[in-house]
Amino acid sequence: MAGPKPRTFKGTRDFTPAEMIPRERLIERIKRVFRLYGFSPLETPALEMLSVLAGKYGEEGDKLLYKLDYKNDDFSSRVALRYDLTVPLARVVAAHPEWPMPFKRYQIQPVWRADRPQIRQGRFREFYQCDVDTVGAEEGLADAEILALTIEMLDELGFESGDRRAIVQLNHRRLLEAVCVRCGQPRERLADFSRALDKIDKIGREGVNDELARIGITGDGLARLDEVLESAGPNVAPLEVADRVRALFPGDPAATAGVDGLVTILRALDDLGAPLARISLNPALARGLDYYTGAVFETVLPAHPHIGSLTGGGRYDELIGLYGGADVPATGTTIGLDRMFAAMEQLGMVASAGATVTRVLLAAYSDEQVPACLHAVRAFREAGVPCELFPKAGKLKKPFAHADKLNIPFVAVIGPDEATHPDGLHVSLKDLSTGAQETVALAAAVKRAREAVLSS
Amino acid sequence: MAGPKPRTFKGTRDFTPAEMIPRERLIERIKRVFRLYGFSPLETPALEMLSVLAGKYGEEGDKLLYKLDYKNDDFSSRVALRYDLTVPLARVVAAHPEWPMPFKRYQIQPVWRADRPQIRQGRFREFYQCDVDTVGAEEGLADAEILALTIEMLDELGFESGDRRAIVQLNHRRLLEAVCVRCGQPRERLADFSRALDKIDKIGREGVNDELARIGITGDGLARLDEVLESAGPNVAPLEVADRVRALFPGDPAATAGVDGLVTILRALDDLGAPLARISLNPALARGLDYYTGAVFETVLPAHPHIGSLTGGGRYDELIGLYGGADVPATGTTIGLDRMFAAMEQLGMVASAGATVTRVLLAAYSDEQVPACLHAVRAFREAGVPCELFPKAGKLKKPFAHADKLNIPFVAVIGPDEATHPDGLHVSLKDLSTGAQETVALAAAVKRAREAVLSS
Repeated sequence: MAGPKPRTFKGTRDFTPAEMIPRERLIERIKRVFRLYGFSPLETPALEMLSVLAGKYGEEGDKLLYKLDYKNDDFSSRVALRYDLTVPLARVVAAHPEWPMPFKRYQIQPVWRADRPQIRQGRFREFYQCDVDTVGAEEGLADAEILALTIEMLDELGFESGDRRAIVQLNHRRLLEAVCVRCGQPRERLADFSRALDKIDKIGREGVNDELARIGITGDGLARLDEVLESAGPNVAPLEVADRVRALFPGDPAATAGVDGLVTILRALDDLGAPLARISLNPALARGLDYYTGAVFETVLPAHPHIGSLTGGGRYDELIGLYGGADVPATGTTIGLDRMFAAMEQLGMVASAGATVTRVLLAAYSDEQVPACLHAVRAFREAGVPCELFPKAGKLKKPFAHADKLNIPFVAVIGPDEATHPDGLHVSLKDLSTGAQETVALAAAVKRAREAVLSS
Repeated sequence: MAGPKPRTFKGTRDFTPAEMIPRERLIERIKRVFRLYGFSPLETPALEMLSVLAGKYGEEGDKLLYKLDYKNDDFSSRVALRYDLTVPLARVVAAHPEWPMPFKRYQIQPVWRADRPQIRQGRFREFYQCDVDTVGAEEGLADAEILALTIEMLDELGFESGDRRAIVQLNHRRLLEAVCVRCGQPRERLADFSRALDKIDKIGREGVNDELARIGITGDGLARLDEVLESAGPNVAPLEVADRVRALFPGDPAATAGVDGLVTILRALDDLGAPLARISLNPALARGLDYYTGAVFETVLPAHPHIGSLTGGGRYDELIGLYGGADVPATGTTIGLDRMFAAMEQLGMVASAGATVTRVLLAAYSDEQVPACLHAVRAFREAGVPCELFPKAGKLKKPFAHADKLNIPFVAVIGPDEATHPDGLHVSLKDLSTGAQETVALAAAVKRAREAVLSS
């Protein structure tokens, strides 16, 4: 019964312990900030009715749904794998009209795209999304909270200063609409206009101009766009940009609604103590998705433009109404876990944790000391120190090589002398980071390992 | 653009915050024990190559695989959703012959079964599994560690004494084989014999006798089975049962191997300080799966037989070899998260946590106090207290009703008096559990809420 050679599906990944340990730590730190802001966990099924997902992600998105070939009952081909976390949220909220509003949830689960994977570019068929959204709250405070949370989370992770300083780009769909009209296009072209502008990071201003030309924006239209873009600059305070932009659109209702919305959000951010210097009001920020209706935002590392956006989101007041009930206002952001983790690795922000959670490896000099070793294992664990016994007694080279490969910081050997020490059970404790080794009472070894665990 | 009525796929579930909050707490407590024992996290993709999964779960299992209808490239119908966590572990280990052994991992991820769901019986199409396994360690210590971990985890969760006392049932496949032969059947019938015995909790001894009669065990065969079963009793120490069983099979190599294995495991358990009184050696314990080769075990609540087993596992030394490499010994257990959680709810072991993580809800008496409220929100969060501002100022009944519905323990109101208090910002803090309300300085309110958070 020889089996197949083991292979994973292209575009999917195993997360080994060496990858999972820092990943779980990252997620735990992010969750902590979510909870401080009053966001609670939600999970939805991987399998959704196809009717819930179809038509929500545009024509391209529909093609990327993984549909199920399950012919054993009457559900044949009518389910698909979750494509994002926003549509499931909308479904859940629509299904629970009795829930008190606002409803604030975070959700960290994998999603699936039947795409051509590009592993090097970080595009996978199965990947995690990490979303945080407030449903049932109007424009203003709820958006400010999402932005404050984003900055606090980024700072907590180390994206606070120097070349790791993250900046939130902020815009408003109504303002973008006014910019589109200002460039001589009807607001019905907003989607095309957005898509062209959205590529600015990838193809530069020249490339964007070519794209805009294709939808009929040239000459005077481009000049009118330039005026708007020049009103913002990387070092202009966002409230100042708001004033300048407002002056460019006297009496324009869309621009006024957009700028008013942004000012409300910025003032709430200031009241929350968030640093406005980390916000860049960018009237050209588009964000691709069609469903945004108000503020849109994304986080970038200005010193590392190639990394792309670490987070991105916005307000979508009309999506939940698609599920048959009333419109429910909503706002939120996605945290790009994979990209964030890759950025942290690239910028040296992830301490190598090794391939195991174990902090102390016990080693028995011979089979006779195995019971003493197990007694010691128990003492380490009772003190909260992850610990295990190397399963083969004798040949001490082996447990040391094992600890070395897995990056276990301490090896504790028990031989006849340690086991029968007149002052009770001792261990020969070696700190693999310094090479220092000493024979100490079990309690002292436990204390030392516990201190190392607490300080890491 | 009216949409479909939102519906979930039958046999799948949303986990709302009210369900997720205690669920995450449970998982965190379980993970903590896993880590103490040196088990590290692993995750594998939901989508596996069909060739990896097919043929591993028997004919019935093959039918229950969710295969994918993805015709857009050359992978059409050759992938399927993960069915369990053991086969993916075997694949990962087979793919990494360079990993140091033993490899100790835990894995908590959903699996999918294309089954008829029976929601009331707790049978779902998508559900979580929680597995902990040691790969690359021979019979003995590794099995004892799995059992010690199981008991420690159960005790940590409250399944320690009284009518919540959990017992580990323990047997060995070699011993079971000997029992099968003793009943007059060739060892090739072991699978049928196991399946019959496995039903004893559901259909009782009489029902099992009928099943056994069907495979040819009657009269004398049943009497010889009785002798074995009588050697074990609920209150007989496991090492004593081992002695009695050994005496029933003088010179039988399979029985001797089985009993020797069990004794080795029990002695290691004792050295680890695990309470042997929580182990019941049961020579009739079968465990359905065909791939077990050594010790098998499951946890039950003797006072609540209808709840079924909370955990179950065993040694499977021949599974990993199916993936083309050498045989690698392995042992582990599954924790039935859903069943365990249901049991804890039923036995009153889950404190109702409410539907939000928020511990303090700020409420502004009027729009004027919103900035003061946001300042207070920030102070609570800086002290680690999950906190939010109710988004509408005024009409204080609303935030109180909101807090009441979501089970938020504190409401802090700021009106003109509190905002302009001569001794600095004050809040009117109401403890909703006692109804007590008092106006205190912000710092005092933060301290009080922080203490409540730390003690919960």
